[in-house]
Amino acid sequence: MARIVQKFGGTSVADVDRIKNAALKVKAAVDRGQEVAVVVSAMSGVTNSLIELTQKMGPLPDGREYDAVISTGESTNAGLMALALQALGIPARSWAGWQIPIHTDGVHGKARITGIDTAEMEKCLKAGEVAVVAGFQGLGPNNRITTLGRGGSDLTAVALAGALKADQCDIFTDVDGVYTSDPRIVPKARKLDKVTYEEMLEMASLGSKVLQTRSVELAMNHKVRVQVLSSFEDKPGTFIVSEDEVVEKQIVSGISHSRDEAKITLLRVADRPGVAASIFGPLSDAAINVDMIVQNVSEDGKATDLTFTVGRADLDAAVKVLTDNKANIAYEKMSSDRGVAKISVVGVGMRSHAGVAQSMFKALAEKGINIQVISTSEIKISVLVAEEYTELAVRSLHTVYGLDAA
Amino acid sequence: MARIVQKFGGTSVADVDRIKNAALKVKAAVDRGQEVAVVVSAMSGVTNSLIELTQKMGPLPDGREYDAVISTGESTNAGLMALALQALGIPARSWAGWQIPIHTDGVHGKARITGIDTAEMEKCLKAGEVAVVAGFQGLGPNNRITTLGRGGSDLTAVALAGALKADQCDIFTDVDGVYTSDPRIVPKARKLDKVTYEEMLEMASLGSKVLQTRSVELAMNHKVRVQVLSSFEDKPGTFIVSEDEVVEKQIVSGISHSRDEAKITLLRVADRPGVAASIFGPLSDAAINVDMIVQNVSEDGKATDLTFTVGRADLDAAVKVLTDNKANIAYEKMSSDRGVAKISVVGVGMRSHAGVAQSMFKALAEKGINIQVISTSEIKISVLVAEEYTELAVRSLHTVYGLDAA
Repeated sequence: MARIVQKFGGTSVADVDRIKNAALKVKAAVDRGQEVAVVVSAMSGVTNSLIELTQKMGPLPDGREYDAVISTGESTNAGLMALALQALGIPARSWAGWQIPIHTDGVHGKARITGIDTAEMEKCLKAGEVAVVAGFQGLGPNNRITTLGRGGSDLTAVALAGALKADQCDIFTDVDGVYTSDPRIVPKARKLDKVTYEEMLEMASLGSKVLQTRSVELAMNHKVRVQVLSSFEDKPGTFIVSEDEVVEKQIVSGISHSRDEAKITLLRVADRPGVAASIFGPLSDAAINVDMIVQNVSEDGKATDLTFTVGRADLDAAVKVLTDNKANIAYEKMSSDRGVAKISVVGVGMRSHAGVAQSMFKALAEKGINIQVISTSEIKISVLVAEEYTELAVRSLHTVYGLDAA
Repeated sequence: MARIVQKFGGTSVADVDRIKNAALKVKAAVDRGQEVAVVVSAMSGVTNSLIELTQKMGPLPDGREYDAVISTGESTNAGLMALALQALGIPARSWAGWQIPIHTDGVHGKARITGIDTAEMEKCLKAGEVAVVAGFQGLGPNNRITTLGRGGSDLTAVALAGALKADQCDIFTDVDGVYTSDPRIVPKARKLDKVTYEEMLEMASLGSKVLQTRSVELAMNHKVRVQVLSSFEDKPGTFIVSEDEVVEKQIVSGISHSRDEAKITLLRVADRPGVAASIFGPLSDAAINVDMIVQNVSEDGKATDLTFTVGRADLDAAVKVLTDNKANIAYEKMSSDRGVAKISVVGVGMRSHAGVAQSMFKALAEKGINIQVISTSEIKISVLVAEEYTELAVRSLHTVYGLDAA
């Protein structure tokens, strides 16, 4: 018998009517003869309100109590969903993270799942009972409740699908799938029928909000077939699958963009061994992630220019760190720029196709868009451009790679 | 070292500021050198909202899911209270019912506590950590969450005080103690310094809303010294204690009244053995509680009149049951009256004093108040009167028994 995990995000279970609507999606799966485990988020807005309450109690809330408080929204919804299913005549029961249990480490606020005991749940599923699981929460050491961090309910769903060896994990949300690009910027963006884990991973880290990186990684590692689909429409979404399921590979599957970047340039840095460590060591110590890095060839063999990007929210902190370490790094001047955007083309087909980067550079040049920094991986090419060119760049590339809807 | 349980009701933890205010009461106890366990309710209104949500999901909610949902308000507040205490520099941790655990039977919605494992909590208390316990909830069979019913957080507090062998259980609420009568009706009502378990039990069952009958019973059975006091003022409340602690016993400690009554009279019921069973059996089967009963002496040895009271909310159902069973009971006529009130005088001193009832009857007669039904116990006398006389009767008796404030 086929087994499926269905996950409903905050907007899909935001009130009584939406929970009932989601319950109909579950009923459809039951009627198809599937064994179903459902993972629910809190009603949209609830977790944020709870976080606010914890913050009002005092500075730096204890992670254990923070988790005890903010996990309650999912517990409420798990019970309500079980009731909604029962009202449809479907046997169902709710499971809190501690009841299963979903074991995690003790890193409160962003715990990692270390194991899921599915023995009890297996019995219930086999007896025809729908298991309704509170997402986002687990059981840490010392019998305390933990939470999994942003996107945690997706993580619960994917991990549970892996542990239950489910045939599929449906992520119901307020978008109907993964698009070739952001439809708000690219009116001709198309919904993808399938996308590979690797592509989805790149897209997630490049700014796509559909699924968090951690969930995609987990799905890839456990070979969980994930479908992202709308809970408000009744049509297929996008399947996230392994590469061998994608018969005809797109050279480029999507164009991503991110405005969360800022650029720092250090001018005339001493060109000697160890200089990179002297720059990036202190930034790393300050928990600042550096993304794209480009180092010019040194003209005189003595000094070079170095450009890199950090998260825009980290820019001020990064500038401070570099100013404090100026003597040690030995650069002449520093400049920074918030007005940049990262544009990326992603596709597993790139591996076997030459000229993808060249098409990109040419298309941007034709539109008069200057490329400031380039970085590449096996299946993506990212460039940094002035932020004002974001929409133009994304739309141009979308056309160039043949992604526009007919 | 003294050990105390402090319980804060819904209005005392209704928002961020009130939780912080309640935390100051806990701090005062810690500063006095006491080991403290705190029991918290949900923010006032939250549990009712959750109950509403469960009802909107469909008819007759499954008790297990109902409990899973409505117990979340207390879990949230336990975490928030722990955070508020930590912000004051007091080591504290929250305990959900399942974490302790507080074992209960499986009667969801009004479970009975069957045992409390205090071993882990003992260690924490001895290490100087305040234990913040989510009230109202427990762990039933099969690892499911149960709730204890109305007044459940009081029950948690008293049971925990018993299990921890606490020296005292303070119930912080929005009234400052137990009064000789309802101050809204009797302006001269006085707050009692002490009241016995037995008296409190009678008062609770006669309409006093201060503490539920079950909590008083539990306190009496486990000899838990309970204090009811205001969380908004800083002064002693009323102690509920065993009789030997009350040195000079009041003959009458208080005057209660209840407007939740309705009267039913059956005229010319056959005066034969088994007739009472034929009346009260069907009512009992319909889960209708009968309170006061009076049967007139039969004049002709053939038929008698029978009067009794039921809860006002049950009157229609009771009338229907008696109508349906008319042939079997064999009465001539039935009349019913919602316009009645039960007035009671309560006091352990009554046992050793004659004439208490006589004073009551005389006082009511002097005011022209007709007594419809009388019922007595060892420490209380209740009479049923026309509802319009409620205030007059209560105030007159308050004066007659010397309870008026100077």
